[in-house]
Amino acid sequence: DPSDSARPTNVQKLNIYEINELDRGSPAILRLSKKKVFSLGDLVPFTNKLFTGDLKKQVGVTQGLTVLIENKPEKKGDRYEAMYSFNFGDYGHMAVRGAYLTYEDTYLAVVGGSGIFEGVYGQVKLEQIVYPFKIFYTFYLRGIKELPEELLGDKPVEPNRLLDPFFYYVSYWKPILRFVLK
Amino acid sequence: DPSDSARPTNVQKLNIYEINELDRGSPAILRLSKKKVFSLGDLVPFTNKLFTGDLKKQVGVTQGLTVLIENKPEKKGDRYEAMYSFNFGDYGHMAVRGAYLTYEDTYLAVVGGSGIFEGVYGQVKLEQIVYPFKIFYTFYLRGIKELPEELLGDKPVEPNRLLDPFFYYVSYWKPILRFVLK
Amino acid sequence: DPSDSARPTNVQKLNIYEINELDRGSPAILRLSKKKVFSLGDLVPFTNKLFTGDLKKQVGVTQGLTVLIENKPEKKGDRYEAMYSFNFGDYGHMAVRGAYLTYEDTYLAVVGGSGIFEGVYGQVKLEQIVYPFKIFYTFYLRGIKELPEELLGDKPVEPNRLLDPFFYYVSYWKPILRFVLK
Repeated sequence: DPSDSARPTNVQKLNIYEINELDRGSPAILRLSKKKVFSLGDLVPFTNKLFTGDLKKQVGVTQGLTVLIENKPEKKGDRYEAMYSFNFGDYGHMAVRGAYLTYEDTYLAVVGGSGIFEGVYGQVKLEQIVYPFKIFYTFYLRGIKELPEELLGDKPVEPNRLLDPFFYYVSYWKPILRFVLK
Repeated sequence: DPSDSARPTNVQKLNIYEINELDRGSPAILRLSKKKVFSLGDLVPFTNKLFTGDLKKQVGVTQGLTVLIENKPEKKGDRYEAMYSFNFGDYGHMAVRGAYLTYEDTYLAVVGGSGIFEGVYGQVKLEQIVYPFKIFYTFYLRGIKELPEELLGDKPVEPNRLLDPFFYYVSYWKPILRFVLK
Repeated sequence: DPSDSARPTNVQKLNIYEINELDRGSPAILRLSKKKVFSLGDLVPFTNKLFTGDLKKQVGVTQGLTVLIENKPEKKGDRYEAMYSFNFGDYGHMAVRGAYLTYEDTYLAVVGGSGIFEGVYGQVKLEQIVYPFKIFYTFYLRGIKELPEELLGDKPVEPNRLLDPFFYYVSYWKPILRFVLK
């Protein structure tokens, strides 16, 4: 069947948490600009864990690169161009591209995928919960068949920027303390 | 409505100028190959300003990375693989990928977008006007709704490779002089 | 015609070999992690030759970047995030994104293209034949018109991992010897 009926255009929502538990040697901060503050020229390859939106199950890892574009002192943060992928094991992967701001939510483009994500397109909202340890994603996906229950999970844990850091740090205090003391 | 009628396939043309006024600390030339001429291994992160095709209004910035692939002495230029995005503020962004040659026009792929560019696909012609300060783009976009007048602008200023450099350098002689003297 | 009939969704298969004959100064191994084994932070820009699946004709080059994500001692190999393009001269190019494992086949996403590949999407299977000198690709492409005979070639030479290395090294022993002795 050569018609585009093979490519659904309805939007499917998918919530995913990306968490850095500091057990993957990530991120690698390459200060290639050789400047004192983060500047254009610095690169940050990274890889973190992915969890379902209900935080009940690890479902994969991210991997890729962020390119530092500029430091924004007035925002106390940085602007990056991000190019990375969400790898869901045997389910396949999705590749994303776009701006990552440490001080503001952004929308990235979903540029393609493999496996159950073959033919995917759409966008994803990136919400930073605990910088740089925890990010909440809301994907708006088109071009693919119905997502499996295993990735959708139950009702997502709403990202709570006020309460979360406390619980977050309590549960992860050991690696974070090691990181801070380093 | 699950049909693909939600994704228009007509082509929309969009002209955009990318201009480096040397006020963004860009590009960052990372000579990681440690060779005397540009070689595979060198990376060039960059961010420049975007203007409507009529040059009347700044509408955003580019941000991303070019990977030097090879120096072409016979062409007095270089071949790059480019991965960057066009960010149009609240309108959203488009991500592109493909070859950038300093001595020849190329076509890059538009691989996705966010905001009004959600679901975008197509290609973009890259014409170099004043290397490396001014580039003229003609986007051929599909998959999106009608582009806003603010981005389309009026009749584009035709890129004039003979006349432009003079006017260009006259208007920007201060930062360019600083750059050359550095 | 604004309907999506302009974008075919039938799958077209394309076999391509990528071969490093060590004549392009590739890859450039950037050990930016400064660790003894490959680690997150290392980058590998590269460019290799492309041949039709029947190995009768060179049809282009690859160019791009792989980002080392992690070394897997138990697999005696490495995991990368790859972002590169397949450039087929006047035919245009395709951009791909996804995981590259030195010890296992993977599927990458085809995220866009130019020329005859304008509007392309789908995925590509990456099979490593002689690491890191020879890779066999099977593209599953959608969104484009019929591929030209010149790229399709005749019946592909089946990748033979048992026999190939011998023939491969015999035919390329000179540059490989130079590489090993370096």
